[in-house]
Amino acid sequence: MELLLVSFVSGIVSMITALYLYYFVKRHDAGTPKMKEIAEAIRVGAKAFMKRQYRTLAIFAAILAVVIAIFINLNTAIAYVIGTFCSAFAGIFGMDVALKANVRTANAGRKGLDKAFPVAFFGGAVMGLAVVGLALIGVSSLLWFYGLEKGPQIVLGFSFGASSIALFAKVGGGIYTKTADIGADLVGKVEMGLEEDDPRNPAVIADNVGDNVGDVAGMGADLFDSYVASIVAAMILGLAVLGNTGVLLPLVISAFGIFAAIIGMFFVKFTEKKNPGATLNRGTYITVLLIGIFSYLIVAYLNLDMNLFYATLSGLVAGLVIGISTDFYTSIDRGPSQRTAESSKSGAAINILTGFSYGLISIVPPILGIGVATIVSYHFYGLYGIALAAVGMLSVTGMIVSSDAYGPISDNAKGIAEQAGLGSKVVAIADRLDAAGNTTKAITKGFSIAAAGLTVIAVLATYNEIVGIKIVDIMNPLVLVGAIIGIAIPPLFSALTILGVGRNAFRMVEEIRRQFKQIPGLIKGKAKPDYAACVDIATKGALQELLLPSVLSIVTPLVVGFVLGKSALAGFLAGSILSGLVFALFMANAGGLWDNAKKYIEEGKYGGKGSDAHKAAVVGDTVGDPFKDTAGPSINTLLVVMSLISSIFAPLIAAFALFG
Amino acid sequence: MELLLVSFVSGIVSMITALYLYYFVKRHDAGTPKMKEIAEAIRVGAKAFMKRQYRTLAIFAAILAVVIAIFINLNTAIAYVIGTFCSAFAGIFGMDVALKANVRTANAGRKGLDKAFPVAFFGGAVMGLAVVGLALIGVSSLLWFYGLEKGPQIVLGFSFGASSIALFAKVGGGIYTKTADIGADLVGKVEMGLEEDDPRNPAVIADNVGDNVGDVAGMGADLFDSYVASIVAAMILGLAVLGNTGVLLPLVISAFGIFAAIIGMFFVKFTEKKNPGATLNRGTYITVLLIGIFSYLIVAYLNLDMNLFYATLSGLVAGLVIGISTDFYTSIDRGPSQRTAESSKSGAAINILTGFSYGLISIVPPILGIGVATIVSYHFYGLYGIALAAVGMLSVTGMIVSSDAYGPISDNAKGIAEQAGLGSKVVAIADRLDAAGNTTKAITKGFSIAAAGLTVIAVLATYNEIVGIKIVDIMNPLVLVGAIIGIAIPPLFSALTILGVGRNAFRMVEEIRRQFKQIPGLIKGKAKPDYAACVDIATKGALQELLLPSVLSIVTPLVVGFVLGKSALAGFLAGSILSGLVFALFMANAGGLWDNAKKYIEEGKYGGKGSDAHKAAVVGDTVGDPFKDTAGPSINTLLVVMSLISSIFAPLIAAFALFG
Repeated sequence: MELLLVSFVSGIVSMITALYLYYFVKRHDAGTPKMKEIAEAIRVGAKAFMKRQYRTLAIFAAILAVVIAIFINLNTAIAYVIGTFCSAFAGIFGMDVALKANVRTANAGRKGLDKAFPVAFFGGAVMGLAVVGLALIGVSSLLWFYGLEKGPQIVLGFSFGASSIALFAKVGGGIYTKTADIGADLVGKVEMGLEEDDPRNPAVIADNVGDNVGDVAGMGADLFDSYVASIVAAMILGLAVLGNTGVLLPLVISAFGIFAAIIGMFFVKFTEKKNPGATLNRGTYITVLLIGIFSYLIVAYLNLDMNLFYATLSGLVAGLVIGISTDFYTSIDRGPSQRTAESSKSGAAINILTGFSYGLISIVPPILGIGVATIVSYHFYGLYGIALAAVGMLSVTGMIVSSDAYGPISDNAKGIAEQAGLGSKVVAIADRLDAAGNTTKAITKGFSIAAAGLTVIAVLATYNEIVGIKIVDIMNPLVLVGAIIGIAIPPLFSALTILGVGRNAFRMVEEIRRQFKQIPGLIKGKAKPDYAACVDIATKGALQELLLPSVLSIVTPLVVGFVLGKSALAGFLAGSILSGLVFALFMANAGGLWDNAKKYIEEGKYGGKGSDAHKAAVVGDTVGDPFKDTAGPSINTLLVVMSLISSIFAPLIAAFALFG
Repeated sequence: MELLLVSFVSGIVSMITALYLYYFVKRHDAGTPKMKEIAEAIRVGAKAFMKRQYRTLAIFAAILAVVIAIFINLNTAIAYVIGTFCSAFAGIFGMDVALKANVRTANAGRKGLDKAFPVAFFGGAVMGLAVVGLALIGVSSLLWFYGLEKGPQIVLGFSFGASSIALFAKVGGGIYTKTADIGADLVGKVEMGLEEDDPRNPAVIADNVGDNVGDVAGMGADLFDSYVASIVAAMILGLAVLGNTGVLLPLVISAFGIFAAIIGMFFVKFTEKKNPGATLNRGTYITVLLIGIFSYLIVAYLNLDMNLFYATLSGLVAGLVIGISTDFYTSIDRGPSQRTAESSKSGAAINILTGFSYGLISIVPPILGIGVATIVSYHFYGLYGIALAAVGMLSVTGMIVSSDAYGPISDNAKGIAEQAGLGSKVVAIADRLDAAGNTTKAITKGFSIAAAGLTVIAVLATYNEIVGIKIVDIMNPLVLVGAIIGIAIPPLFSALTILGVGRNAFRMVEEIRRQFKQIPGLIKGKAKPDYAACVDIATKGALQELLLPSVLSIVTPLVVGFVLGKSALAGFLAGSILSGLVFALFMANAGGLWDNAKKYIEEGKYGGKGSDAHKAAVVGDTVGDPFKDTAGPSINTLLVVMSLISSIFAPLIAAFALFG
């Protein structure tokens, strides 16, 4: 039981550190009245969206909780509700700090890059620490309350609660942010020739809000979700093969992952000589190294089979390799994005075709990485080994989320500096912070998709364990049909979210055009645009468009399970994992690639800004936007949600399915 | 043995009919000297490409034949060589007639639509009949020679021979045709403002050649390949469950499919009242109906289990349903392509995103159709039932290829009419013929992808049968890793072919620009462009770019099999089939959708030709070009090649694999 205490304490330590950093950020000055006004507008927009999103979500979650209470059991339903609260609280808290950190980063930027950097980074770290802290506090409390035998099954509910939040936060936030981004770009940049973040653009505040609700709150919820799912899968599989130790080991590894992340953060220090991207990556590398060492010590100290350590390590190493390969395919300094930039000379269509192709090719190294990690970790400790590899990969979450949330904070800071007219020097500093965020983003994104992939494989094994399937034979026609249906779900889900963005962006475009037409003096900067109207459109549209894909992800596995039976559902999950990995990696990487191809041209290549090649590259970038920030990362969540709901309803499906 | 004779005779009848139609086409006048000159230029270009392609292919095939002779056995190697010859001969013969039919269709168009239509349709029918005729003659001869016991295994070699041809013809022809098409469009239409098929465009002949080598020869080889593979898979699985009858039944069904197609062709009659598209589809429907009746009669006459008929029927019906759903998602009269057209108002990026999304959604109905056909046919007769469903679907091949080859012939006729200055009335007639080709294309394409899907499932079952695997357990880590690698192959293959098109189109664009710059008087129509230079670039580039994807499709399954073992290879094939289906359907449909969205705008909607919406739609159309005519349909061939080579090398893999 002291191991459980370690896990609980690590969660508390994480939260205390987060609180400390919160006050660190808050202590800084928020700058000029103009800056405060802009920051307030962003805050109001973000809060309004979150409020409405959570209201819709509350209804959705309440229905699911009742369904779970009736058909499964009350305890799982309670755990489900706690899970939603923990994830929601982490999201709200993290976003709150991000909304304070953005303007303070901009203001600190007036004193120099070295002053601004820590505000942005530690602002992001609050989110990172809140995610892992609340996750471990929640899981270990439930385990303490329900005991190690019965606990893991109940924690499934907690995990599913976190997934529900992630689904809404990621899909809704993703639609919101790209609606605003595309709308602002299409009218502001392309039609009116304004710069990014020009205060005359009516969608500029909505765009800044989007960074917070999509990239901070959404992404945090996404990783909360994978993090908990990997732990719960390992606990259930571990209980079967190793008893109590099997349940506790993943928790302890994750606990030391928190300590490692906190230590890693100390190493993220900005010096004028180094670029901020390098120091962020250094923080990640140190965290990974420490987790490797800690895992070894844990397994040795507990006198366990060293194979458990090797399995964990394989996941950790694979995550790192995948991150680095993602970096290769998306980085502005590498062949793929430069060749895509070059292809823009032949027009938008060739830019699209080239980026599309490299995006497809980019899935090969991570797919092989996941394959190798699967086979190595299985070799060392069977299915539990695979689950530990996922836990190993995700134990870096605290650091990953911190570096990731740093991105939108800097992006917002840049926007505020621009709108408040802080001058080109401050904008340039904010821009450098922002660029660093982009380079770390590739690595963290690769990490999180790969981790979700391994996690859902482990959750699928958990499902099989619960439902009592030993074999999932793909030549069994029910399994085959399940798999055939399963592969269609991630592309369908992506299509629905992208169409949602398209429809919503269309409304946004109309509104922005209307304002430029009807508000006299707007384009000359003599009148203020109606920011709130754009915020409102993005909010309403996002909530409207997230429903269909969300319902799809809950209902489809249940229909397959109850109609075609438990084996078909296993096939369905396997099929959806396989195609989900392909689409998630493709979309995330292609999007990043197009983005950097455009940036490469903006650095002055192939005619630079305003050239035909640049116009072609902007088309690619716009196509990539919902790929990388809406559809791609939402697939992670989709896979986790589908495999968790299958696991929760597994006993019912086994008992009442029509066929199979 | 009289059943074998029926099959052989049906092949002979098919070839005699083809010869008759060949003379029918040839009898027509080829028109003015100018027309003959253009037709000759196309013929010379096409022949040059085919010659070079077959030369490369001969080396490739010779190496494979030697490898098969050494490692498998001499008989399979001989069958392999015969397979390559049969498929190549069908391709050469069919293309030869198409090259005669194009100019004669244009010339007949001067006397009216009703005179031109039969020349185009019966010109295409030669290809259709040659494909099924030579396939059945080849298969039944081999079976007669080697006996029903040993024969099916040997016929695998024949099938693989046909697949090798298909791989080269489809990938090479696909790259060729889109290189020329995109090159001609980007410079000719977009930069110089010329119409399609303007004789001043240096790439116009290469573009016309492309229709023949890609859409006639390539597509014919593709269906030859699926057609034979479905028969051989059914024979091997049939031998195991039903003995000799199991081997002969698929042959007899296919034989009567030929008779049905010939009868169906009589019903393709053009009357002024009907549009040519409707009459083409009527031919297909009648053929399907007849095959249904014939299959029933065959099973009843032979006194076999009626379940065999139901299994066959399920494939036939599914094929039809899938064709119709494909039509919905790509037709110019339906929501998806019209909404994509509307979205073009917001620019190229939104057009791409919308078409991309509908393309993804369009995979759902056919995927469900394949799922239902799988489960129904399995229900009636196990794995043999699935194979029979594939045979049922593909027994329509004679008619499908005829309607399909009609398309490029009319397209060419339009080009010749335009270049020879036959006047707007003749061009309009050719245009109507061409448009009809597009509507049938959707149905035939859906049919052929679905059929290939069922076929490879059957071939996978054949592989398992040969290698002695009863269960392919996806939770076995070797199988899982195989599947993970397998899903990455179709996207990787698509990316390589698309990049090939992109690179080659880039060279073409440079050459066309050079000609416009350096040949004085070209743009004013006072000088002739150097057509041959463009033909040469397309030829060289296509052959160069097809090598890597071709080698990939041969080598990868062997590496997976010999390293990770027979179970991993089964997983690999399953994974590649699943993701291959998704990508093939998505690419074919998205491409057709973008094409028709553009055409819809050209009909005068949203500003019509030359508007901003039209420009945006042209980008989508160009992106869709290699999707629908290169990468998408090549995936069929990829899947068949991979599953056949696995089946041929199955005994060796079972004996010598490193793991598993």
